[in-house]
Amino acid sequence: MSTPTLTDDLPPRIDHEASLPVVDADAAAATIDDDATVAVSGFGSVGDPKAVPLALARAADAGDRDPGLTIVSGGSVGDPLDTTLVEAGGVDRRYPFVATDAARTAVNDRSIAFADRSIAGMSDDIRLGRVADPDVALVEAVAVGSDWLIPSTSVGQTPAYVRAADEVIVEVNDAQPRALAQFHDVVVRDVPPNRTPIDLASPGDRIGDAAVSFDPSKLRAVVRTDDRDDPYVFREPTDADQAIADNLISLLETEYETDPVFGAAPTLQFGVGSLGNALMSALSDSTLADSDTGLRYFGEVIQDGLLDLLEDGVLEAASATSLALSAEGQDRLFESPSAFAEDIVLRPSDISNAPSLIDRFGVVAVNSAIEVDLYGHVNATHIGGSRLVSGVGGSVDFNPNAHLTVIATPATAAGGEISTIVPEVTHVDVTEHAVDAVVTEHGVADLRGTSPLERAAALVECATPEFRPALQEYVEQARERGGHVPRAPERAVNWPE
Amino acid sequence: MSTPTLTDDLPPRIDHEASLPVVDADAAAATIDDDATVAVSGFGSVGDPKAVPLALARAADAGDRDPGLTIVSGGSVGDPLDTTLVEAGGVDRRYPFVATDAARTAVNDRSIAFADRSIAGMSDDIRLGRVADPDVALVEAVAVGSDWLIPSTSVGQTPAYVRAADEVIVEVNDAQPRALAQFHDVVVRDVPPNRTPIDLASPGDRIGDAAVSFDPSKLRAVVRTDDRDDPYVFREPTDADQAIADNLISLLETEYETDPVFGAAPTLQFGVGSLGNALMSALSDSTLADSDTGLRYFGEVIQDGLLDLLEDGVLEAASATSLALSAEGQDRLFESPSAFAEDIVLRPSDISNAPSLIDRFGVVAVNSAIEVDLYGHVNATHIGGSRLVSGVGGSVDFNPNAHLTVIATPATAAGGEISTIVPEVTHVDVTEHAVDAVVTEHGVADLRGTSPLERAAALVECATPEFRPALQEYVEQARERGGHVPRAPERAVNWPE
Repeated sequence: MSTPTLTDDLPPRIDHEASLPVVDADAAAATIDDDATVAVSGFGSVGDPKAVPLALARAADAGDRDPGLTIVSGGSVGDPLDTTLVEAGGVDRRYPFVATDAARTAVNDRSIAFADRSIAGMSDDIRLGRVADPDVALVEAVAVGSDWLIPSTSVGQTPAYVRAADEVIVEVNDAQPRALAQFHDVVVRDVPPNRTPIDLASPGDRIGDAAVSFDPSKLRAVVRTDDRDDPYVFREPTDADQAIADNLISLLETEYETDPVFGAAPTLQFGVGSLGNALMSALSDSTLADSDTGLRYFGEVIQDGLLDLLEDGVLEAASATSLALSAEGQDRLFESPSAFAEDIVLRPSDISNAPSLIDRFGVVAVNSAIEVDLYGHVNATHIGGSRLVSGVGGSVDFNPNAHLTVIATPATAAGGEISTIVPEVTHVDVTEHAVDAVVTEHGVADLRGTSPLERAAALVECATPEFRPALQEYVEQARERGGHVPRAPERAVNWPE
Repeated sequence: MSTPTLTDDLPPRIDHEASLPVVDADAAAATIDDDATVAVSGFGSVGDPKAVPLALARAADAGDRDPGLTIVSGGSVGDPLDTTLVEAGGVDRRYPFVATDAARTAVNDRSIAFADRSIAGMSDDIRLGRVADPDVALVEAVAVGSDWLIPSTSVGQTPAYVRAADEVIVEVNDAQPRALAQFHDVVVRDVPPNRTPIDLASPGDRIGDAAVSFDPSKLRAVVRTDDRDDPYVFREPTDADQAIADNLISLLETEYETDPVFGAAPTLQFGVGSLGNALMSALSDSTLADSDTGLRYFGEVIQDGLLDLLEDGVLEAASATSLALSAEGQDRLFESPSAFAEDIVLRPSDISNAPSLIDRFGVVAVNSAIEVDLYGHVNATHIGGSRLVSGVGGSVDFNPNAHLTVIATPATAAGGEISTIVPEVTHVDVTEHAVDAVVTEHGVADLRGTSPLERAAALVECATPEFRPALQEYVEQARERGGHVPRAPERAVNWPE
């Protein structure tokens, strides 16, 4: 059979099964060397391989082997890799993003060596050997043939990783509907220096295939599994979430009225999480919902809120690399995939996050932060500058290249004990040069065209009232020291004490 | 006459002069309101308007008027704007880059409100009103007609600025040869959301015109001048420069041998300055000089070293937005422009610095820094985190989007008193996520795929031997605190005391 495309009927789970190396998970795991570099599918904690990581962990726990793997994922992956295998001590090195307690604990106690990288750049990083050179690609699929596979709930970096790896192991997951093929638009770019532009004119366009192709000589094992993704759990929006959403909508409605780029075809990206999900719901009631062209989403993950907007007809198209849905969201999508397949496109993450497309589509990017400082620098990754939360992810792709870059965050953390507006962030992931506005439950700081002290004045007003005097005091102390960016660094270290 | 193109004979300085509003500089200056926002030509301190800024300064010094202008330049401009007019108190606000002592003093004592922005983004920032909305575009040209002008020694953001401004004032400079028209390749991109890709397949390609067109109803004044640019002065390379160049060439030669992207068509960008100039000279003696395809330069400015490489046949093509040459370099170019015009292309700076092209061409970017910290963050703009040197410029365009990002810096500053490798930088312009390697006179730290502590170990070895024990002590103190990025912030503030 040739590589299936969207117009074909659903392919068999395993095409020409007798000719493929179908084995159980333990046998597949046994083909992976203890010191291997394994590039895995998975993004937004879905579409990651499950059976082979668990088999590796079982063998390690049983003392049958002592793996010290380098695991390179697309984005975040679920518990089989980042909890069970990590807790079995099977991972020595990890790129570029983690989202489980076990993995972040291991990174923070440095039993795992970790580096976070741009999502858009990671496909190139691995294809071109810039970060790691994978021995094996271990990827989940809804169907496989001798030289193709159809990804499941995320496309992620899978097209690049199967090209880069010496061998390919495919987990065919019966719990993932084959109809997911309808969502995928797989394109593999040429490498530089003769790389051509990405030929997409609009976030909803399709230019590729449902399947990822690979060199058939690489196919080492096919494993049949039947495990659903761990679904996302979104908390109920808090009062602060709602107030942030209101302030954000107010900013976006003004932009929609006054900015011809945003007015022509409002195109949004939201960071993953409960706040992002709350923001999406609030869009339904905004004037943006009346846009003639329809809203467009050009982002990294599809969350439940987007399904609502699509069903309501508010959203025209949604482009991402992952279906990061709750259990209810998965059920909605899996029960009637065709209802969504025309409007949702899942792309390789070097396309979903491509700086050139973020620029060309005029994306308004809304992402959160751990803390923002008075001059507009953003810490998105490390608590106290030291303890990793997850990784920088798409924030370095979307924020610097967006038409309008908005950081949306509650003004406090730790139950109100800590201000998220601080004199100096303890780690910088996004610089002042890329941040256009900051939104909290207390207001909107529009930083466009402002000097450092003007930024500080606007950001003090976005802080919680209890912290404003201490922030103001810092600004005054710093101002006395002089300079374009006034600082009082020894005050910043232990601020507000 | 229609808009001139490369194939035409040289146009007259002022086409149909009788029909154009030719006036003297004082009369042109008088048309600019005291509180106007003025978008000016100029990049790399060349191609900036000279006569009208001096007229404005004269009027201010004489007490005839009290201007408080917002000046938006392409990149750096020369003394008429950023010394004479600044010292006359005529500038209240300034974007996005300054390079004179007078302007940086005014920014640092906050008599001028300043913000630095990405060079690539600035054309959009002004066209779309994101940073400032210009009343007047004041631009230097080698020739002008009723609805076109040909830029002089820099193209910069001129095409965008004349579109964005309500009125246009052109200084036609007899000291700038009309043959500069042969270098320009002016293209104006559509704005998002229907922006199309930039149709360049190689750094040396041409897809545009020599002239910048504008709405003829905007032309308020044409002023005839005869003032050369202030030429660059490069210091002689120091021993440290030479040792850095040797280490860099060693890195580049390895990449050239092992990296198929760089091997296929080695494409480089260097930051402006004496170090960059020294690095270019060293390339002539490297194995890269033997490349079949020829070296390519895709950067921001053309410096003298590139003229040598072009004359030697080592360089196939050089793309930039400015001719930032010494007096000798200007003489060489101006005496035989045709000898260079085939291989040098001057583009608008949103094209010269376009993230999409930096990616597609696989550019290896080499830029300097004020300081680099042990985890790979770069301060490129502010001494002590407070005192602006110039601005972030193209470093936020090239570093995050390059195929290989190299920071090249002497290991010490202030005559050896200060280490440029520090525990924590005092201002972050380029984050760890974008830096692949750091080169000093003491070695190369290859940071690709490294964890924070691995980065620290490599960077300690790039420091001057005198500072290594203090850096190592910091790493050990920080390591005891734990976390993925170990820190001892109160130690970092006054390090090494």
